Amino acid sequence: MELIESTVCFGGKNAVYRHPSDACGCDMTFGIYLPPQAETTSVPVLWYLSGLTCTHENAMSKAGLQKFAAKRGLALVFPDTSLRGEGVADDEAYDLGQGAGFYVNATQKPWAPHFRMYDYVARELFYKVCSSFPVTEKHGITGHSMGGHGALTLAIHNPAQYQSVSAFAPIANPTESDWGRKQLEAYLGGDQARWANYDASLLLCRTGWERDILVDQGNDDQFYELLRPGTLTEATRSSGVALTYREHE
Amino acid sequence: MELIESTVCFGGKNAVYRHPSDACGCDMTFGIYLPPQAETTSVPVLWYLSGLTCTHENAMSKAGLQKFAAKRGLALVFPDTSLRGEGVADDEAYDLGQGAGFYVNATQKPWAPHFRMYDYVARELFYKVCSSFPVTEKHGITGHSMGGHGALTLAIHNPAQYQSVSAFAPIANPTESDWGRKQLEAYLGGDQARWANYDASLLLCRTGWERDILVDQGNDDQFYELLRPGTLTEATRSSGVALTYREHE
Repeated sequence: MELIESTVCFGGKNAVYRHPSDACGCDMTFGIYLPPQAETTSVPVLWYLSGLTCTHENAMSKAGLQKFAAKRGLALVFPDTSLRGEGVADDEAYDLGQGAGFYVNATQKPWAPHFRMYDYVARELFYKVCSSFPVTEKHGITGHSMGGHGALTLAIHNPAQYQSVSAFAPIANPTESDWGRKQLEAYLGGDQARWANYDASLLLCRTGWERDILVDQGNDDQFYELLRPGTLTEATRSSGVALTYREHE
Repeated sequence: MELIESTVCFGGKNAVYRHPSDACGCDMTFGIYLPPQAETTSVPVLWYLSGLTCTHENAMSKAGLQKFAAKRGLALVFPDTSLRGEGVADDEAYDLGQGAGFYVNATQKPWAPHFRMYDYVARELFYKVCSSFPVTEKHGITGHSMGGHGALTLAIHNPAQYQSVSAFAPIANPTESDWGRKQLEAYLGGDQARWANYDASLLLCRTGWERDILVDQGNDDQFYELLRPGTLTEATRSSGVALTYREHE
């Protein structure tokens, strides 16, 4: 791993690393915040998955999360949202290809075999973070929009790996949304049974989730109809999952 | 003024406005945060001036300042750093022209007569904010890098208007820096006596400042040599101005 940026932040350290990724077949970039406590002990980790068009820099620069993390002794990991670079497949639309990996393992060309953001975040980068930094086995995952979708689906598939999950305005039911149907077809092909593996609402009905989930949603969100929070709340109700759903101005 | 964006933030409101500017001869955009207290009373204002390449969106999105402002009942104003648009003069360099107004009134073409960011921020937008929003006469001003330069110079010229001033890593002595000499010559011409009006260190020696100043500076800042904090601390010492200078990792 190559350290490409490092700054002091609330007594801890914001760092950006670049590394060759086996999952993606190209170099990937991620950010990590290590709180001051990490100098003397191992700390739990909160993963933050960003949304469409974002890079690792998004929440790292904007969320103001480091102050909280420094107080609570929490490491933060900010993965990128897709592969990037001149040799990497892309689409003219902002919501497909680079900046829009949707946290899936693509099976269709030109996205396969390298658009494997599910494997990258949940396997390769997870292992890399655990083996390279002073972190415990306690990991939580969160994100917003496409990243909220990623957080929910990664957690539901890996309940032993992620002990907590939450999301801001997640794409909650992509198989029934214009933020999802196009991308899932492009990445996975026409068989909608495969899409269901990447739909939090469908996964909750199928697999459940034994702990609670926190979702925060603005009631005047311009993308409300694309996010489909109602389907998620209905899925948790019918599957008996404890959802704290905060919808507010 | 046209409201082009509005979101709820810590119980208050983040809003972005566009308006025709007489000072600049084009439309200008600024952000404002009104804390919850502004619904029932007038509130003091903190102006945040951003640095090179930034827009109004920079500190509004990244600084995490709204939580503090909501607690203390403080409005925040985020001006843009220059004129913008297709019909606006520009330079290929990132540090001249659009995104790099340096908070001066240009006298040289092609920047004159419209690059008047000093008049825009300290006069036109100041008046617009005071007449359009529930604010008191208590205004403070701050900023970073080029915006720290702007905050210091605007305050020193207008001590009755700005009751407090502070800066993160300000360009503290632009007449002796590569972040300054090129721009001051382009905007003001070769007469260096005119440049001194826009140099915080020189202004402090000439005019002084009756209250205190707070400056925060990283000791490993990659632009440390361009910012010249030593000249500012020396100027405050020789002019008897109370500077709290925090230099840290």
